[in-house]
Amino acid sequence: MNPKIHTTEIKVRYAETDNMGIVYYANYLVWFEVGRTEYILSEGLDYADIEKEGLFMAVIEAHCVYKAPARYGETVVVHTWPSDIKNSSLKFNYKVTRKKDGVLLAEGFTTHVLIDKDVKPRKIPEKIRALLT
Amino acid sequence: MNPKIHTTEIKVRYAETDNMGIVYYANYLVWFEVGRTEYILSEGLDYADIEKEGLFMAVIEAHCVYKAPARYGETVVVHTWPSDIKNSSLKFNYKVTRKKDGVLLAEGFTTHVLIDKDVKPRKIPEKIRALLT
Amino acid sequence: MNPKIHTTEIKVRYAETDNMGIVYYANYLVWFEVGRTEYILSEGLDYADIEKEGLFMAVIEAHCVYKAPARYGETVVVHTWPSDIKNSSLKFNYKVTRKKDGVLLAEGFTTHVLIDKDVKPRKIPEKIRALLT
Amino acid sequence: MNPKIHTTEIKVRYAETDNMGIVYYANYLVWFEVGRTEYILSEGLDYADIEKEGLFMAVIEAHCVYKAPARYGETVVVHTWPSDIKNSSLKFNYKVTRKKDGVLLAEGFTTHVLIDKDVKPRKIPEKIRALLT
Repeated sequence: MNPKIHTTEIKVRYAETDNMGIVYYANYLVWFEVGRTEYILSEGLDYADIEKEGLFMAVIEAHCVYKAPARYGETVVVHTWPSDIKNSSLKFNYKVTRKKDGVLLAEGFTTHVLIDKDVKPRKIPEKIRALLT
Repeated sequence: MNPKIHTTEIKVRYAETDNMGIVYYANYLVWFEVGRTEYILSEGLDYADIEKEGLFMAVIEAHCVYKAPARYGETVVVHTWPSDIKNSSLKFNYKVTRKKDGVLLAEGFTTHVLIDKDVKPRKIPEKIRALLT
Repeated sequence: MNPKIHTTEIKVRYAETDNMGIVYYANYLVWFEVGRTEYILSEGLDYADIEKEGLFMAVIEAHCVYKAPARYGETVVVHTWPSDIKNSSLKFNYKVTRKKDGVLLAEGFTTHVLIDKDVKPRKIPEKIRALLT
Repeated sequence: MNPKIHTTEIKVRYAETDNMGIVYYANYLVWFEVGRTEYILSEGLDYADIEKEGLFMAVIEAHCVYKAPARYGETVVVHTWPSDIKNSSLKFNYKVTRKKDGVLLAEGFTTHVLIDKDVKPRKIPEKIRALLT
């Protein structure tokens, strides 16, 4: 039961680089977000719609290991897949590679809890659970 | 009737620099926002409270002229003052200088319209108008 | 002699939104940067290569008029075209529209000076000038 | 041998919030960076000077656990202290609390390797090691 892995390409923006001439480390978490938005979309869900229903996927943990730098002008590929889908929480896993040579730039994960507007944990709706598993 | 000019110090963050080794140009608009938040606070208002009342200061125009670069580790000073306070709109003006030598780094303005949650323009409340003029 | 207009699509990131539920105003300048990077690429140049030759397109002015908000999950289209190509400076113009209905969200420009590593203005190389005009 | 803990206050910027009305998760890594810059400064070092000598503190790992959201207008306190100072690597630890009530918002760490311009690991200079231990 291997999960589907979704891949998204991102062109490195000048805004994302820093004084060291490489992509600033916090921006990998932004790319992770792009990866999971696209993963969810690829399953036929739209996270914007989930929020319109008053549900939010709050991040409770984020982790990233940096292997090699990304630079302006390069295209990176974010590989995203879910795991550990529990009652009201789930995990997304990521690998970021450089498109031109496949070199691994970073890998990490984010853990999320589904909450409502009152910041109360909510059971992941069956519709969503079915699509992610 | 010169307006009061409020000054706020900002330490340049690594995250704000780019590949050129200087502060990325869009971040001056973030510093302008810090300047006007602090200006409003210095007048005894809290923009967070204004939003809690369902009023938002939407930006309708932004302009910045870049004179000299800011670098990581430097402290900049944002000088902020309002002008052109009309029925439902107002302008904030900014000068950004380098603290250690006073060199002008950038200057610009933002124009705002007060709107409600339905994105309808609203008259600037007298309480706010009185404080800004 | 109408200039070529280049269009680039950008999917709004969660990171780009703010407390008002719309895209934070400084991010339009980031999108302008994506637009001009793609414009230059579409002409067969790579701005990353220009920088490797020790030339930088410093921004000396930026301007943006905001017409309507962009929201998470929407796709925007950045329309980019150069103008006012002078000895060592040039201007890029932008219109940002919402993809699904073509509504104009913002328009603006940035003015640039070509400089070298010593921050001295440099004549725009003929190779670049030819491609932009 | 408890390490010194350095505290830095940060006022939440509007730019740092997102659609959920809270600070976007990647920005905690920016705050961590502000924390370690200030930690290093408090020890009499200036990271900008370290870079001028051709040494860079590359991030190889980042981790953050999110406990409670931060909102626009609040002031947060970043508590920073180093640990695991090895031959060419070290770790920084962080706790972010809300100033007004001391509530823990997030905690995490970053691990760094000292590298030179050729991205080769370098021994942490005695001058720096002495200050951090």
